[in-house]
Amino acid sequence: MTIRLFKQFQTLKLHGVCSVCPLWRHAWSCYSTEPNSPTVKTSIPGPKSIAMKRDLDLIQNTDVVQFFVDYDRSVGNYIRDVDGNVLLDLFTQIASLPLGYNHPRILEVLKDPANISAFANRPALGIYPPTEFAKLLSETLLSVAPQGLTQLQTMACGACSVEHALKGAFMAYRRRERGGSAPTQQEIDTCLMNTPPGCPKLSVLSFKNAFHGRTMGALALSHSKWFHNLDFPAFNWPIATFPTLKYPLEEFYKENIAEDARCLAEVEDKIESAKKAGQPVACVASEPMQCEGGDRYASPQFFQGLQDICQKNGIALLLDEVQTGAGATGKFWLHEYFHLRDPPNLVTFAKKMLTGGFYYTPDMRPTEGGRIFNTWSGDPSKVVVLKAVLGVIKDESLLARTTDTGNYLMKSLMDAQEKYPHLLSNARGLGSLAAVDFPAAAPRDNLVERLRSLGVHVGVCGTSSMRLRSTLTLERKHVDIFADRFNTVLRDT
Amino acid sequence: MTIRLFKQFQTLKLHGVCSVCPLWRHAWSCYSTEPNSPTVKTSIPGPKSIAMKRDLDLIQNTDVVQFFVDYDRSVGNYIRDVDGNVLLDLFTQIASLPLGYNHPRILEVLKDPANISAFANRPALGIYPPTEFAKLLSETLLSVAPQGLTQLQTMACGACSVEHALKGAFMAYRRRERGGSAPTQQEIDTCLMNTPPGCPKLSVLSFKNAFHGRTMGALALSHSKWFHNLDFPAFNWPIATFPTLKYPLEEFYKENIAEDARCLAEVEDKIESAKKAGQPVACVASEPMQCEGGDRYASPQFFQGLQDICQKNGIALLLDEVQTGAGATGKFWLHEYFHLRDPPNLVTFAKKMLTGGFYYTPDMRPTEGGRIFNTWSGDPSKVVVLKAVLGVIKDESLLARTTDTGNYLMKSLMDAQEKYPHLLSNARGLGSLAAVDFPAAAPRDNLVERLRSLGVHVGVCGTSSMRLRSTLTLERKHVDIFADRFNTVLRDT
Repeated sequence: MTIRLFKQFQTLKLHGVCSVCPLWRHAWSCYSTEPNSPTVKTSIPGPKSIAMKRDLDLIQNTDVVQFFVDYDRSVGNYIRDVDGNVLLDLFTQIASLPLGYNHPRILEVLKDPANISAFANRPALGIYPPTEFAKLLSETLLSVAPQGLTQLQTMACGACSVEHALKGAFMAYRRRERGGSAPTQQEIDTCLMNTPPGCPKLSVLSFKNAFHGRTMGALALSHSKWFHNLDFPAFNWPIATFPTLKYPLEEFYKENIAEDARCLAEVEDKIESAKKAGQPVACVASEPMQCEGGDRYASPQFFQGLQDICQKNGIALLLDEVQTGAGATGKFWLHEYFHLRDPPNLVTFAKKMLTGGFYYTPDMRPTEGGRIFNTWSGDPSKVVVLKAVLGVIKDESLLARTTDTGNYLMKSLMDAQEKYPHLLSNARGLGSLAAVDFPAAAPRDNLVERLRSLGVHVGVCGTSSMRLRSTLTLERKHVDIFADRFNTVLRDT
Repeated sequence: MTIRLFKQFQTLKLHGVCSVCPLWRHAWSCYSTEPNSPTVKTSIPGPKSIAMKRDLDLIQNTDVVQFFVDYDRSVGNYIRDVDGNVLLDLFTQIASLPLGYNHPRILEVLKDPANISAFANRPALGIYPPTEFAKLLSETLLSVAPQGLTQLQTMACGACSVEHALKGAFMAYRRRERGGSAPTQQEIDTCLMNTPPGCPKLSVLSFKNAFHGRTMGALALSHSKWFHNLDFPAFNWPIATFPTLKYPLEEFYKENIAEDARCLAEVEDKIESAKKAGQPVACVASEPMQCEGGDRYASPQFFQGLQDICQKNGIALLLDEVQTGAGATGKFWLHEYFHLRDPPNLVTFAKKMLTGGFYYTPDMRPTEGGRIFNTWSGDPSKVVVLKAVLGVIKDESLLARTTDTGNYLMKSLMDAQEKYPHLLSNARGLGSLAAVDFPAAAPRDNLVERLRSLGVHVGVCGTSSMRLRSTLTLERKHVDIFADRFNTVLRDT
């Protein structure tokens, strides 16, 4: 018997059972519990990270590599680097982990035989979709679609999502201009030579400090950091001012209302000028909160006004929720807080959604096939994993938890700001998104580094903001650890 | 004992063992053998595909959906649709399957516990790479890099790869113009407003009938089909004529040489005019063979001449091998056939490589961090699968097989062309890439449909070409099946 059982195990080992413990997945079975607190053993990056960076630098520029990660042994809200440092992660791969590292429900998906072909056979989704694909989309991406956005396109990444969403807006604009007529032969011929009328002089209005991605269409809307844009030819499209709110909001209510009005008037001016310059605006694109640009919020009234202007001028409104969606704010989409009269026309997503893509209203839907398309057009295996993620969000009421933890986190930032007013200002946030400003970049960067040496990993944005981007599974106990280390560092500054 | 064994199986079932056969993976264990020939049971699309398309059409435009696929039960070179039709697949997800469906070595990767964290934890690769990432790249993507291209960037898809490769070229061009100086404050300020000098008036020269992708930078280089470009504003960059070779090549040697010269002269003219117009060419981009545009080859001499022109003018040469690379031609990269004096500066890939990305020469390498970057910057899980794919290509000598099978396929196309000269012309190909022209689109489309009803699935390109894109595992026996059905259809035309 012993021999038979042993043989059984041998066979199973060949087929993927861990040799240490007779359970299915090594990484999961052995490291599934979050530590109680961070552990820092070396400077960060440590010697192993530094050696690996040297190797990688032979292949590509690694100036922005921070450290190398042991993903096998990272768990929940804790990231473990290759030198064995275990950090509470409040940046989470630039806000792209919904549940943290190695979540058991995600690992379940990866070991379910029913899912394997999604990972083994990436389809050309636009022409050969997998069986019951509409059902999969309905149970996942569409189950969390912003109200009124019934149409959906998956894409590979955030930038591609923005690019193709813009194309939806351009097509809709020209379709309306054509009044139902088919494109002319001249349009068809000239579009193959990049010239009007086939490639019309249309534009997209974006905002200063915005960020929408690094491909040339998305980049034309991005104005937050010089090293994103320098040296690249760009569409000369209108760029308006995004409101700069004064904090605390209740104190500067009047000023902020005036700022909204000023910025909206500028938007209207720019739309008018673009039209006069023969380059009418087909789409206004904005993040519901500017992230890379420095966690810059605007009021619901501003976005309501923006929608009014768009509707008055027959312009599509694109809200880019790549960083703010997927429950990050305690609502599934940040723009739900705006109570817009009508749905925005286009909403892009990626990061925590695991797949790129965008939702759109029926009027943005292409009337010819193959207009919004590329070979992969997304990746159904990511949607399969997303299904588990959305299940956990629902089963564990993670939106409510994110609101609660977010409020608790905000309180700790507010307390710190009150205690250290010479160092901190403008504490702001919603759910898992939080930020606070420093007097300049240098003290901010210094604090972030010292915080990391105490085991708490955070991000930065804008010129002098600290940016927190946690998972949706963050709890008050994690915030306590952050607050403790944050105050220690502030006290010693 | 029986009870203990039974319990053992129960546990295992929960952890992913097939309930039918006590092996690890259902899809793999039950359907791992290719059928001997196709089976067609219904019209294609069949009733189930039609119903699923109706459902999907509620969510997005499905005009170009051909049929829905049962990926679980597709195997090797045979694709199975949801109606149970099993087709010999000679289009393979728009040329994106290196080894076919559910290859055992790929399934092995997916069940190896050592790999699971790559699938469960997608990193922000540019700042938090996984442990030993340089080693993984060296063993995979770099092990098949075109000679002289020592630098590498992964990206999510083909279009993004082209976009970021262009950025590499723009930066290199401006870096040389600056002669080592840092960018000026004026450049830094203006680049955030999309205007010169920060966003300079540079251009990329592309070719008529080219295709490089659907995002706005890649799209500015794409001129093959109107529905890719219509309605979208575009960079007004120079577009030159790609040679039209006359077949058979040995008969039209002189004419083709003259065509090369004519097209190269036009390239030089366009470069000169762009310079005069204040929009100098920083990069010339070309597919080594135009795929979407109609499987249009050009001679090695043409590409050698193109490189000469680029070098003379200080312009980067980008060869887009998204569809032609990864062994498709019997060499790993099509441009190896060109015997260029120096490596091209940039080579993009995707499709059969499973991940997007590009190789580049050291002079194209950004000197500042974060210039070529996005959150995901690729997907290491795809590289993990690619490792197995490259292993199979080597172990099974698939490049040699692809050459052999390709020659055998070409012979069958040549034979058919000789037999049906009123229907077929310009049979051409290299390895797994093959095409033949029809007098017009209608007879081509008609034949392709009838071929499918006999169990052979092929693609189309250009205005009237049939396009074959097989896996690298195709054998002569598969070609025999294709040839048999192809001749049947031709005979009845």
